[in-house]
Amino acid sequence: MPTDLFMKESKNPYIPFGDRQDSPFYGKDILSVKQFTRQDLEYIFGVAHEMREMVQRVGSFDLLKGKILANLFYEPSTRTSSSFTSAMERLGGSLIPINEVHYSSVAKGESLPDTVRTLECYADVIVLRHPEVGASADAAKYARKPIINAGDGIGEHPTQALLDLFTIYEELGEVDGLTVTMLGDLKYGRTVHSLARLLSLYKVEINYVSPEILKIPSEIIDEVDSKGIPQAEFTSLEPVMPMTDVLYVTRVQKERFEKLSDYELVKSAFTITLETLTIAKERMIIMHPLPRVGEISMEVDNDPRAAYFRQMEYGLYVRMALLAMVLGKS
Amino acid sequence: MPTDLFMKESKNPYIPFGDRQDSPFYGKDILSVKQFTRQDLEYIFGVAHEMREMVQRVGSFDLLKGKILANLFYEPSTRTSSSFTSAMERLGGSLIPINEVHYSSVAKGESLPDTVRTLECYADVIVLRHPEVGASADAAKYARKPIINAGDGIGEHPTQALLDLFTIYEELGEVDGLTVTMLGDLKYGRTVHSLARLLSLYKVEINYVSPEILKIPSEIIDEVDSKGIPQAEFTSLEPVMPMTDVLYVTRVQKERFEKLSDYELVKSAFTITLETLTIAKERMIIMHPLPRVGEISMEVDNDPRAAYFRQMEYGLYVRMALLAMVLGKS
Amino acid sequence: MPTDLFMKESKNPYIPFGDRQDSPFYGKDILSVKQFTRQDLEYIFGVAHEMREMVQRVGSFDLLKGKILANLFYEPSTRTSSSFTSAMERLGGSLIPINEVHYSSVAKGESLPDTVRTLECYADVIVLRHPEVGASADAAKYARKPIINAGDGIGEHPTQALLDLFTIYEELGEVDGLTVTMLGDLKYGRTVHSLARLLSLYKVEINYVSPEILKIPSEIIDEVDSKGIPQAEFTSLEPVMPMTDVLYVTRVQKERFEKLSDYELVKSAFTITLETLTIAKERMIIMHPLPRVGEISMEVDNDPRAAYFRQMEYGLYVRMALLAMVLGKS
Repeated sequence: MPTDLFMKESKNPYIPFGDRQDSPFYGKDILSVKQFTRQDLEYIFGVAHEMREMVQRVGSFDLLKGKILANLFYEPSTRTSSSFTSAMERLGGSLIPINEVHYSSVAKGESLPDTVRTLECYADVIVLRHPEVGASADAAKYARKPIINAGDGIGEHPTQALLDLFTIYEELGEVDGLTVTMLGDLKYGRTVHSLARLLSLYKVEINYVSPEILKIPSEIIDEVDSKGIPQAEFTSLEPVMPMTDVLYVTRVQKERFEKLSDYELVKSAFTITLETLTIAKERMIIMHPLPRVGEISMEVDNDPRAAYFRQMEYGLYVRMALLAMVLGKS
Repeated sequence: MPTDLFMKESKNPYIPFGDRQDSPFYGKDILSVKQFTRQDLEYIFGVAHEMREMVQRVGSFDLLKGKILANLFYEPSTRTSSSFTSAMERLGGSLIPINEVHYSSVAKGESLPDTVRTLECYADVIVLRHPEVGASADAAKYARKPIINAGDGIGEHPTQALLDLFTIYEELGEVDGLTVTMLGDLKYGRTVHSLARLLSLYKVEINYVSPEILKIPSEIIDEVDSKGIPQAEFTSLEPVMPMTDVLYVTRVQKERFEKLSDYELVKSAFTITLETLTIAKERMIIMHPLPRVGEISMEVDNDPRAAYFRQMEYGLYVRMALLAMVLGKS
Repeated sequence: MPTDLFMKESKNPYIPFGDRQDSPFYGKDILSVKQFTRQDLEYIFGVAHEMREMVQRVGSFDLLKGKILANLFYEPSTRTSSSFTSAMERLGGSLIPINEVHYSSVAKGESLPDTVRTLECYADVIVLRHPEVGASADAAKYARKPIINAGDGIGEHPTQALLDLFTIYEELGEVDGLTVTMLGDLKYGRTVHSLARLLSLYKVEINYVSPEILKIPSEIIDEVDSKGIPQAEFTSLEPVMPMTDVLYVTRVQKERFEKLSDYELVKSAFTITLETLTIAKERMIIMHPLPRVGEISMEVDNDPRAAYFRQMEYGLYVRMALLAMVLGKS
């Protein structure tokens, strides 16, 4: 674990947390993966790793006791909202859950800045999910309290990208030197774009495997290329599976295809089964942002390389870390 | 109170709770009333009774501090969900409330096992309400954390049956020797079937009073009969009211009747009023799973025999007991 | 701050809270502004002011630890519900949030008294929002636990009126001697009526500025007049702006007008801009119950006289005070 940097700061490993208003993230917003340097990521993952150890040792602890998180979701996302809820509660904090914004008077005609400026009277930090690109950045412009972007339309979902990368760290011990293969809908998949961006801060090789019509956008290719990362595109998984350390699977949506027969073809070619794994490394991991709808056969779940449920758990630790950091507690 | 068995285990009555990973229910699922022996029930009711005393003495206490309950409701049930919420909070624990599953991405195409395996990354115990019979058992097969069935369609609602029986215990001091009369829709009433099953572990007499078309199913009759419990069926309450110790009233739904006039007849014949009580014992109780819609006249509410609101409160204690037990704390 | 009365009771200013079952509000319902004397208001505002100081000093504290608030909202009001949620959590208490009553079984045919008598088995205090006038008073008649009215249709919303008045107290130091100008829809605006009633307990002057068709009801005028309060009505803000200490702006809804052109005329005449403020006092405040939809231009937000977001925050302190008081803790 490349957390030496962080560990050095923490003299006593058993009391690693406390008031750290000198933390580089204290009072900051978490809006985009573009805001992070490699050093930032190592700091975050160092804290997230300590969160993991604390949760495994004691379940919960009172680092954020008395703090309140407003979970402001303009579109439903039970998975993300539950993850932040758990993160806050395992740190002893409380929640203002606002999951049904579209029914509520908050939504009726009120501008997002006004809603945010109202909520920050009640909460210490706001997690925002919104269907419009740039909503979080807009909210952050007006808010005095930290805003964490939990997805703004086809824009960003930075905490998802962070948990994806943290999963690789924790499962494989390092990121440098790995071959990462992304599979499925690489055109519309927000998570894939953000992960590729973060990975470009490391020395990795990236393979993109997708049907022709769902290829990774050239702007991502160009951006990653500018960092000197080797990339290659494929329409079939077979050739790259043997050298893959991380297989990142995403869902291919039926709606993307004009002809149902094209979809069916792609669907069966892109489904991960135990047979797919016969040519895979012994030590590699399969990831998926979930929910899956058939892209990975349930028979794979018990294989130790199936990391997608552990991935959910790593998400908890990353979000605990982010909450603690922006509130000046780590 | 037949809790001697339990009380013997608890040397110091003032510190009755703590880590009890040797508890017979630690890490277990609560799926069906069929899983309980009479000894189990006495254990549960012993703990529930102590919960009652603790709540009356101090309101809340921190037995489950740091623990998180995911309240996963695929169909709305404010009453049950509120009861579990309160139970967890009175024990110092926290909640992940998921009440609007049908709107959320969790629901969209994702299988119940995947949803449960995601949620258990965030929570320590899952309470599940689902419209399909067997959903909780299915979830439990995949989950590493305890699942508590809070109703699976026309299947079971075991915590309701437990609270019904605990109400009888607490109100009348014992179950053996009682005459229990069930009234209303005995054909479709899930709570009635489960309660009859639990009662058959005791030495009771059971009367069933219902319109002809809403008679108790013969399979329940047979099952209870096999335990040697005397049972009798009636279409009018009058003959059995005088010897009844527990009158369990359920709602008769208009939709069950082909002719509105048949419904109106039944409705008025099966409504409990103060006049109904003139031939009742001085010491007996009237129960109802609630909500009621006219089956019991509001004028009855102030009669000390009206136990249905106290019944709600006993539900709190039973659910506190179950949560503490499956989490190894009693 | 006219809190001498209160401060005298609190010997040690640093331990101002504790068990105060002799509190005049212990176990009481908060149903209507009509229930308060001026002495009551000073008591409430004294406690609210201490809440403000505690929150600013420590964020949260455990005055209501172990207590549970049921937030029972029959119609959505994210703002009010979030404010009560935060108030309870900043006092260390817990919540049973019931925001989607219309979907739930609680609503289906069950009477409000039954719902309330069920919920009070689980909670220590109930905050009720209901579309029907008198709902809270009806609920309070049946409940053993305190009910706080969070809005009953076109009836009352007493905690809004209290926070409005508390805002004036905190911002301007006193109420006696002030000139309060109310602007906008004074006919249908529930908050305006309640605030006028509360203000009539003080020595103030009130101006009403509204379009002809949205004039303040004569019954309010009469009621306030009976307390000897000077009042005047206007159709334009200009003549009263220079002597106004408190400008209370409300929203004018398009639906109130038969002709769109009439609405457009009123809308532009009643919008507060920086230009409006050129003739205002240096020391005065602009209030708004929010949400606003254009009545106050965003350019005004950074003017120190813009008090409407601070008003939200004062709402938190008032609700903390009320919760603590009815639960016998201040």
